[in-house]
Amino acid sequence: MFLLKYKFIKDGGIATPQGFKVGVAKSGIKYQDRYDLAFIVSQSSAVAAGVFTTNKFCAAPVLVSKKHLMECQEFRGFVINSGCANACTGEEGYSDALKMTEEAAKLVGCSSEELLVASTGVIGMQLPMDRIIKGIKVAGSDMSNDKGHLAAQAIMTTDTVSKEVAVEIEIDKKKILLGAMAKGSGMIHPNMATMLGFVTTDVAISKECLQKALVMANKDSFNMLTVDGDTSTNDTLLVIANGQAGNTFIEDENSEDFKNFAKTLKEVCITLTKMIAHDGEGATKFLEVRVINSPSEATAKKAARSIVGSNLVKTAIFGKDANWGRVVCALGYSGAEFEPNLVDIYLGELLVAQKGRGLNFDEDLAMKVLEKDEVVITVDLNLGDYKGTAWGCDLTYDYVSINAEYRS
Amino acid sequence: MFLLKYKFIKDGGIATPQGFKVGVAKSGIKYQDRYDLAFIVSQSSAVAAGVFTTNKFCAAPVLVSKKHLMECQEFRGFVINSGCANACTGEEGYSDALKMTEEAAKLVGCSSEELLVASTGVIGMQLPMDRIIKGIKVAGSDMSNDKGHLAAQAIMTTDTVSKEVAVEIEIDKKKILLGAMAKGSGMIHPNMATMLGFVTTDVAISKECLQKALVMANKDSFNMLTVDGDTSTNDTLLVIANGQAGNTFIEDENSEDFKNFAKTLKEVCITLTKMIAHDGEGATKFLEVRVINSPSEATAKKAARSIVGSNLVKTAIFGKDANWGRVVCALGYSGAEFEPNLVDIYLGELLVAQKGRGLNFDEDLAMKVLEKDEVVITVDLNLGDYKGTAWGCDLTYDYVSINAEYRS
Repeated sequence: MFLLKYKFIKDGGIATPQGFKVGVAKSGIKYQDRYDLAFIVSQSSAVAAGVFTTNKFCAAPVLVSKKHLMECQEFRGFVINSGCANACTGEEGYSDALKMTEEAAKLVGCSSEELLVASTGVIGMQLPMDRIIKGIKVAGSDMSNDKGHLAAQAIMTTDTVSKEVAVEIEIDKKKILLGAMAKGSGMIHPNMATMLGFVTTDVAISKECLQKALVMANKDSFNMLTVDGDTSTNDTLLVIANGQAGNTFIEDENSEDFKNFAKTLKEVCITLTKMIAHDGEGATKFLEVRVINSPSEATAKKAARSIVGSNLVKTAIFGKDANWGRVVCALGYSGAEFEPNLVDIYLGELLVAQKGRGLNFDEDLAMKVLEKDEVVITVDLNLGDYKGTAWGCDLTYDYVSINAEYRS
Repeated sequence: MFLLKYKFIKDGGIATPQGFKVGVAKSGIKYQDRYDLAFIVSQSSAVAAGVFTTNKFCAAPVLVSKKHLMECQEFRGFVINSGCANACTGEEGYSDALKMTEEAAKLVGCSSEELLVASTGVIGMQLPMDRIIKGIKVAGSDMSNDKGHLAAQAIMTTDTVSKEVAVEIEIDKKKILLGAMAKGSGMIHPNMATMLGFVTTDVAISKECLQKALVMANKDSFNMLTVDGDTSTNDTLLVIANGQAGNTFIEDENSEDFKNFAKTLKEVCITLTKMIAHDGEGATKFLEVRVINSPSEATAKKAARSIVGSNLVKTAIFGKDANWGRVVCALGYSGAEFEPNLVDIYLGELLVAQKGRGLNFDEDLAMKVLEKDEVVITVDLNLGDYKGTAWGCDLTYDYVSINAEYRS
C-alpha cells in the first residue's frame, strides 16, 4: 500500500516554493482599484508544463503559451491578467498576448519564449494594451515572495474567494515545496473547467516528467469538475519547476520519486478543484459524486461527471430534495456502460435506491444529509473494481442572477 | 421546388382525424381534481410507430410499448397517465404497465398488445394501480371525438399550457388529417426531450413507412429541442394511422404521397417542439439557434444543440445581454467541425461577430432583438451548404424555483 506523506503549509501559496517571486498590479483592465495582473517569476531557469482548453475557439494566450511550451526547453515564469479573456480577438489579440510576454521578458531579462501567459474575463474584447503594459511594469518592479495572496486575488473574476494552497513533501530526503493558485467560478466544465491554475515547485524534474505528472493530475482533478457545463476558451493549467530543492533530478517516470511528486501534484490540483466547486457561481452547496464498483475508470468518470453536471440534480440539491430519480436519469443518459438493475444509490451514507429501484427511505435522515453544506452522492454500479469522483455545486437563483448580468 | 400545402385546423387536436375517440379521467394519481389519464382509441384497426428515450434507465411503459410495437402489426390506441413516471420501478412497474394495456384492452375489445402505453411524472414511485384502473374505466366508458383538449391537459406535468395541433393535407386527392398533442417542460434534451408526444392520423400507410416517417420527423424536431440538458427515462413519441381517409395505401417510401405525408408529420412535430420550447420550465423567452452554411447536417445540428443548451447562453438571453462570446464558446466545445476564423454570428438580423471576431455593433439594436419574446441566433460557419436548427428557452430564476421544489 502506497502511503503519501505530505503536509499542507498554513497560509502558503504560489510564492511558497524556493526561488519564486511574485509581483501584482492594479492595471484597471476592467475595474479600478482591483488587482488584475500577476507576474510569477523563478529566479533561476526552470522547466514548465501545461494543459489547455479543448474548446476550438481557444484564446490567444492559450495559443501563445502552447507555442512557447512546444518550442522552448527552459522557462522563467507566468504573466496573467483578469478582466479580459483575449479570446475571439483575431491577429491583434495574438500579437497582444505575445507582447505581454515580451514586455515581461524585458523586466526578467530573459527571452519572451521563456514566459507563459494566461488571461481570463470577457470574451471578444481586445486587451487595453497601454494599461496592461503599465501593469506589467508595476508588477515587475516590485517582486517578492510575500505577494502570493495578492496574486491569487489578481486572477479572480466572479470568484468570491481566492484559491491557493501549498504543500510540503519529502523526496530523496529533500524538502520539496509546491505552491498553487487557481481561479474559476462559472463557465466551468470538464476538458477543462474554465479555470486558470498555476503551480510553482522547487523540485528538480525533467520537462517530460513534469508534463506527464500534470496530465495525470489534471485528469483526476480539474477534468472532473463542472459548474455549468460550459467549457471555456481560456482554460489553462501551468506548472513550473526550478529544481532549487536540490533533489536528485527526476527523469524516470517509473521511479518512486516521480510517483511521489505526481501524487502530490494531483493532491494539490484536487484541493484547488474542490475550492472551485465550493465557490461555483451562486453555489450554496458543494457536491461530490462518487461512482464505485465500475467496470472501468472511464465509465466511472463519465457517470460521475454526468450526474454532477445535471441541472436537475443540481436544483434538487439546492432545494434539499432527495430526488434520487434525477441521479438515475443522469446516469442513464451519461453514455456509461452499466446494468440498471444492479445500481445502488446513496445520499451521504443513506441507501435510497437499490438494484435500480427506489426504497422507502427515511426522509428525515435524507434531509439531514441534504441540509449540510457538502453533499456526497455515491452510485454503486456493482459491476467491477474501478471508481471515479466528480465535483460541482448546486444550481441556484444566484447562478442565474450572476450570469444574467455578467457582461454589463 | 417541393411546396408543401397543408393548413392548420383551428382548435384541432388528437381527436380531429377521422375514426378516433378520446376519453379522460381524474384518477387522483398525484393531484385531486385534475385530469391525469387519457385514452385514445381508433375505431378501426390501425398501424402504429414509435421512437423512445435513449436513457439506459428507460421506464416500464417504454419497455412495454417497444415490445408491443415489435411484436404486433395492428393497433388500436394509446393509454397515458401523468403524475407518476413508472420508472425505476422494477418488475412490479413492468407488470403494472402491462396491466394498464390489459385493462384498457377489455374496454376496447382488443388484445392488450394492440395498445401502447406512456407515463410521465416522478421517477421511482410505483403506480397507484387501483386508481389507475378506475381511471381507465372512467375514461373508456365515455369516449368521444370532442375530448382532445382534455386529453392534452391530462398529460401535463409542470407544463403551464397544453400543447396540441391538427393539420389537413391533400394526398391522392383525399383529405388527410393529422392530430397531435405533447407534454414537456423540464428534463428536456435531445435523444429525446422529456416529452410525450402523440399523433393520430387517418392516412392509409404501411407500418414500415409510418415508422420511417416518424423517425425522420423526430430527427428534425424533438431531437433538436433542449430545455435543461436532461434526457428523461420516459420520452415517447407515438403515431397511429387508421387509413380511414381512404387514400391509396402508402407503402413506397420513394413515392410523392409518402414524402408529402412525412413532411407534414415533420411540420406537426416541429410545431409541438416549438410549443414545448416556449413552455420550457420557467422560460421567459423562446430561443431558436440556426446554424447555416455548415459542411454537414450533423455538424450544423451538433453546433445548434450545443449553443441552445448552454446555461451561459440561456442566462445571457434571460438577462437580455448581447454576450455573443458565450455563443462562440458553446460552438467551440460542441465537437462540431468548423473553422473559427470563418464564423459569423447574428442576433436576430444584427451581425455581432464576423470571421470569429467581435464587431462594435449597436447595443441599442441588440437590445431590440433581445427584448422580444422570441430570440433567433444565427451562426454562419461559411463552410458549406447544410443547416440545422435547434430550439430551447432561457434559464431563469423560475427554472431553479420549479426544480428545487418539484418532487415535494
